[in-house]
Amino acid sequence: MYILIKDISDHVDKEVTIKGWLYNKRSSGKIGFLELRDGTGFVQGVVVKNAVEEHIWEHVEKVTQESSVIVTGDVSKHPKQEGVFELQIKSLEIVQLAEEYPITKKEHGPDFLLDNRHLWLRSKKQWAIQRVRDEVIQAIYDFYHNNGFVKIDTPIMTPNACEGSTTLFGIEYFDEGEVFLSQSGQLYLEAAIMSVGRGFDFGPTFRAEKSKTKRHLTEFWMMDAEAAYVEHEESMEIQENMIVFIVERILEKCQSELTILERDLEPLRKIKAPFTRLTYTEAIEKLNSLGSDIKFGEDLGNDDEGMLTEDSDVPVFIHKWPREIKPFYMKVDPENPDIVLNNDLIGVEGAGELIGGSQREDDHEILKSAIKKEGLEGPEYQWYLDLRKYGSVPHSGFGLGLERTVGWICGVKHIRETIPFPRMINRVRP
Amino acid sequence: MYILIKDISDHVDKEVTIKGWLYNKRSSGKIGFLELRDGTGFVQGVVVKNAVEEHIWEHVEKVTQESSVIVTGDVSKHPKQEGVFELQIKSLEIVQLAEEYPITKKEHGPDFLLDNRHLWLRSKKQWAIQRVRDEVIQAIYDFYHNNGFVKIDTPIMTPNACEGSTTLFGIEYFDEGEVFLSQSGQLYLEAAIMSVGRGFDFGPTFRAEKSKTKRHLTEFWMMDAEAAYVEHEESMEIQENMIVFIVERILEKCQSELTILERDLEPLRKIKAPFTRLTYTEAIEKLNSLGSDIKFGEDLGNDDEGMLTEDSDVPVFIHKWPREIKPFYMKVDPENPDIVLNNDLIGVEGAGELIGGSQREDDHEILKSAIKKEGLEGPEYQWYLDLRKYGSVPHSGFGLGLERTVGWICGVKHIRETIPFPRMINRVRP
Repeated sequence: MYILIKDISDHVDKEVTIKGWLYNKRSSGKIGFLELRDGTGFVQGVVVKNAVEEHIWEHVEKVTQESSVIVTGDVSKHPKQEGVFELQIKSLEIVQLAEEYPITKKEHGPDFLLDNRHLWLRSKKQWAIQRVRDEVIQAIYDFYHNNGFVKIDTPIMTPNACEGSTTLFGIEYFDEGEVFLSQSGQLYLEAAIMSVGRGFDFGPTFRAEKSKTKRHLTEFWMMDAEAAYVEHEESMEIQENMIVFIVERILEKCQSELTILERDLEPLRKIKAPFTRLTYTEAIEKLNSLGSDIKFGEDLGNDDEGMLTEDSDVPVFIHKWPREIKPFYMKVDPENPDIVLNNDLIGVEGAGELIGGSQREDDHEILKSAIKKEGLEGPEYQWYLDLRKYGSVPHSGFGLGLERTVGWICGVKHIRETIPFPRMINRVRP
Repeated sequence: MYILIKDISDHVDKEVTIKGWLYNKRSSGKIGFLELRDGTGFVQGVVVKNAVEEHIWEHVEKVTQESSVIVTGDVSKHPKQEGVFELQIKSLEIVQLAEEYPITKKEHGPDFLLDNRHLWLRSKKQWAIQRVRDEVIQAIYDFYHNNGFVKIDTPIMTPNACEGSTTLFGIEYFDEGEVFLSQSGQLYLEAAIMSVGRGFDFGPTFRAEKSKTKRHLTEFWMMDAEAAYVEHEESMEIQENMIVFIVERILEKCQSELTILERDLEPLRKIKAPFTRLTYTEAIEKLNSLGSDIKFGEDLGNDDEGMLTEDSDVPVFIHKWPREIKPFYMKVDPENPDIVLNNDLIGVEGAGELIGGSQREDDHEILKSAIKKEGLEGPEYQWYLDLRKYGSVPHSGFGLGLERTVGWICGVKHIRETIPFPRMINRVRP
């Protein structure tokens, strides 16, 4: 009976067939231990020379790492480890004998591994990361659909620059001139929620980042959410509920992947609402009291984020920032014209900024002058201004970076491992 | 109590508050009928001049189409229509009074509507289409996760051309030279399933199509699925199961949207597995018998697709096409070297090609010479060839066009209405 490795515990003492690949092999000359994988999991197969036909043992001796194999045997409980199962192999068919596989047990440098990303994805840790990523994605869909948000696919090719003009990838678009790859779907999502009330997008976004850091990709996946009649405080509640929902889902569904990743689960189990809330002003005061010489009006760096979260079990909101250093679309605080109603959400364990969000400026005249001040006035933003002429409503939204979230949950330090095929300043292959 | 219109039936005879927009207004001078929308649905509000305070009636007279409003009133059953509810309005607050709204009841041309896409999305029909689209998307995620597929986000910026080099959008990528926007994630997905067994991607794809037809966009969303150890016949079964699953989900969840779209449900109710299967050879014979002069080796046009499906209640697979007119990656039929193990799936009701798929060539030498024949040899395809050196397995996959699927299910003739912000040869705004 053909089964998947994930279901093997249902088949103890039965004969099953597994279609997969050889992950690893040890052999004493009389007994072989074949670690098999099929995409759903890993299992150890045991084959005893004297117990199988001669040609089967020849296959065992011949089969190489990453060869594709179809294996039949009896499922048994591991003699010592509870909850672990083995396959007592009776037959082994080699579908295709792999040539010498380039990724071995020895240490490989990151460039070598990235050059071989199409193969590196098969390594146990990389496999586990992609499965966690998949579950994070599904958790996000479930959270938004449970909460009445409609998926809106915002466009990738756009004539406007949502997040500044220094990190744009340009494209010649027929006779329409140069357009850019989207940095964020936010502006379009704001238009759509005036139809559907609450919306989210979830797709690739692009920043021509020249910085080579552990937290930057030129192509990464972002989830933007936006909701009509939702103001600053409620927006932060949605954000913390989402993070809690994702973490609970991963703890529930990805136990074996987190074990492979040697992830300490305690910090994840402590992620509960409410998260800490600090205004930007409070954050600066706290940093100063901790010895930093940061001044009001300056942006926070990685070190600052670290200092603000190191004594916290839960992510920390830094909200109500100086208007001067924030984008044009954020709503001015009615109580203080120098402040905007925005928030960053800083993750624990050095995860950095997971979310950026804000209430959006809904006053036509204030927004128009903010756009002008940014040097962005003109026809490309007219439609965005229209939203404040035809039934403007208070509304808020935020964006979650998928790779940073997956990196934090997996305990992976460089986000290049969290996306199947990373793109960075010097890397666009394979 | 603040409620969403979708939940109004739970609040009969109770006072509720709705936050939304005015969709339409009729007034006799003594009684006003306000059609309200909040993103989750539409409801008629009734306001009697003599029954409300004077300033409320002033608001009723003043409020314009698409003004944002907060309305409080009592929920009642419609006196004549079963399952329809009304709001007996007691108070009306205008959040923002809309200027003269450009989209009125009169007929507007498509260019005008597309120029105002950010507002057009609010029209009832466009709202319904986006909600169906959202449900189709969620159905696809559910289908694949139910069936053990892992979401793999394939890259958008790639140095290779999966579907030919005539429809590529180019980007200058730092010092790496020109790269292209992805036409399909298939090749990358093939690499990933050698890790996860079964995978799917679902993201934007790009074709610099110069054709202006009802079925072409330059940016559209595609779902690719790929599975190891799945061969041609089983792949077609997955495809038909997916289509049936999507249609059943929409019939279950989107009744009110399909009513707004005036969609005839009978054809959708007939979508059941198995679908009709015709080999390409049989299809040519059938077309010839119906009077067409199409010859073996020619591609099928829209008219041919129409003739092949017009007597069918279910979509029609056309499979096993001539190798000569198909891409390099399709597996050659072991029984006939001139044929490949591929299929198109042609929808009923003139929906056209919904899916294209194939078993993939898994033999290194055959694939290598096919790549060479296409003029694509060189380093960009080396990693793809690697997949046939290190544990090659029989595998199959296919791609579903989201917009064509949504267009068919909604009964919308031009796919520009199925995507929030369509991009076509002469249209990249707003």
